[in-house]
Amino acid sequence: MRIPYAEMKAEFKRVFLKYGLSEEKAELCATIHTQTNRDGIYSHGSNRISLFASYLKKGWVNAEGAPVKEKEFGAIEVYNGNLGPGITNAVFCVDRAIELAKKFGIGLIGLKNTTHWMRAGTYGLRAADQGFIGINWTNVDGAMPPWGGMEGRLGNNPFVMAAPSPDGTPLLLDMAMSLYSYGKLQVTRLAGKKLPFPGGFDKDGNLTDDPKVVEETRRLLPMGYWKGASFAFILDILSAILSDGGATIDIDNAGKGICGRCSQAFIVIDPQKTSSTEHINEIITRSRAYIKTSALAEGHKEIRSPGEGIAAARKENDEKGIFVDDTVWAEIKAL
Amino acid sequence: MRIPYAEMKAEFKRVFLKYGLSEEKAELCATIHTQTNRDGIYSHGSNRISLFASYLKKGWVNAEGAPVKEKEFGAIEVYNGNLGPGITNAVFCVDRAIELAKKFGIGLIGLKNTTHWMRAGTYGLRAADQGFIGINWTNVDGAMPPWGGMEGRLGNNPFVMAAPSPDGTPLLLDMAMSLYSYGKLQVTRLAGKKLPFPGGFDKDGNLTDDPKVVEETRRLLPMGYWKGASFAFILDILSAILSDGGATIDIDNAGKGICGRCSQAFIVIDPQKTSSTEHINEIITRSRAYIKTSALAEGHKEIRSPGEGIAAARKENDEKGIFVDDTVWAEIKAL
Repeated sequence: MRIPYAEMKAEFKRVFLKYGLSEEKAELCATIHTQTNRDGIYSHGSNRISLFASYLKKGWVNAEGAPVKEKEFGAIEVYNGNLGPGITNAVFCVDRAIELAKKFGIGLIGLKNTTHWMRAGTYGLRAADQGFIGINWTNVDGAMPPWGGMEGRLGNNPFVMAAPSPDGTPLLLDMAMSLYSYGKLQVTRLAGKKLPFPGGFDKDGNLTDDPKVVEETRRLLPMGYWKGASFAFILDILSAILSDGGATIDIDNAGKGICGRCSQAFIVIDPQKTSSTEHINEIITRSRAYIKTSALAEGHKEIRSPGEGIAAARKENDEKGIFVDDTVWAEIKAL
Repeated sequence: MRIPYAEMKAEFKRVFLKYGLSEEKAELCATIHTQTNRDGIYSHGSNRISLFASYLKKGWVNAEGAPVKEKEFGAIEVYNGNLGPGITNAVFCVDRAIELAKKFGIGLIGLKNTTHWMRAGTYGLRAADQGFIGINWTNVDGAMPPWGGMEGRLGNNPFVMAAPSPDGTPLLLDMAMSLYSYGKLQVTRLAGKKLPFPGGFDKDGNLTDDPKVVEETRRLLPMGYWKGASFAFILDILSAILSDGGATIDIDNAGKGICGRCSQAFIVIDPQKTSSTEHINEIITRSRAYIKTSALAEGHKEIRSPGEGIAAARKENDEKGIFVDDTVWAEIKAL
């Protein structure tokens, strides 16, 4: 079904208030979740509301938790997130990184002991919408085998890079380290389809495009095979070092599935200190046109630059009301 | 064959001096190229000497070129590389970023109008060897089709992240955006083998593991399909914005194959400002052990963390002399 923005946000906020968030935190989380749905990322918007509420109920997310500064030096600050809501913690940190970037041109915030920040792209876009470049990543629990291994000991750590848009179409890379998410496997299985490309290994170690098989073996394929596995590993190390926090092994030791004790890094850069607005806009506009006007490959109708999918989803959701799965909406209403 | 370190470096330096580099630049370039070979990255060490000499001869690389500061603000500086040697330009910039990191905790250098920096990992490792975290990337000419396209309009832009090693084994991600390099395609073809996984498209748009076919179509596969293509695009945009420089379209317009006018970004962070040495070493050591002790997948004998391959190559090259292909060495001697 489709729900107007204000109604969706109000419903999310009602749930968050009921499960213990303050007025201010509920307002912010409801806004971010609604914007996430508006951008077409339903998996991390409406589809996480029930789960987030259950985490609040179980105390896995500390409704009262907020970032407390533990270290600072020059353009760097390090915070303890005290297991507060991942969204409010991360929004605070990207906003602080923006303040540091205003002062030093670049700013870095490390955040430890935080919880699931939902959509990774939220924080890069938040910087980009204010005219900054945002680079951020988090570690998460081990859900992907290392290259050559079988056990889920690498986080599917998302990595984000965003730049200010010249024309309203976001410029955003929001990329997890596996080729497909478990959400994509589920959706594909439910549709009775195969994956577009092999997305994991079967029990004998052969690559397979059958989503059900990968859900069973849990041997998710890193994007680019060994490359995505290496990238996931170093993102984990860097987020732990930059936040004085824990790594994926620590998140796993604290209990798989909780996704607490995450470590995150937020780098924000003021591009006006390196380029004029004219140069920034012109580089983006010309580069987009360059790739989009390439001769098309077989079976493709267009070439999209990163962020165009979001712009298309926004447009449709603004015109028709924001999409939400019927069952998911009913679940939220019942909370 | 295998050549002692000092002999290899002296031979490289002889060539560089002959082709117009100053004593200081020849010394630095010879050192970096020799270290690159020592680390087992022959494609960007010995195997580039002749090509680099030819670029100097043609004037594509300006032997006299050196970075000139054009902008500065807080922890950011922007340089014009004046088409000087990619190595000397980039070493200067990572060293400047280290100085900024000492002062501000984090530093960013943008470098425009530079030439091929050879091995991307050189600069991350240079920061890491001095106890810093290094993140750097460059744009290059369009050698990879955008996702859904057929023409090489995306740079195979390498991305690097490195952290200080607790034990001499480097911790380095040095990753180009295609699954395989053209060098890997060539080596595989010459060995009469197929690629381990499909590495590009044939003329009908089907994925193929035949290296010769991909060399012919030049439809190189991005790592992670659309993911690597998106990553390549945003790295291009950011390097151009952060250096006030050109994007891949500009590099291509200046003449394919020249690889001049590249834009690069160097971020260096002082991890001592966020974590103790003890925490840094412990996070790396425990995380490495965690992935390496996963149950092995079929056909794998060990799990390596990023950087272990380099450590192994260093050990062998230190023990036996540094490897160089016979033909390549003969070519260099004849220069």
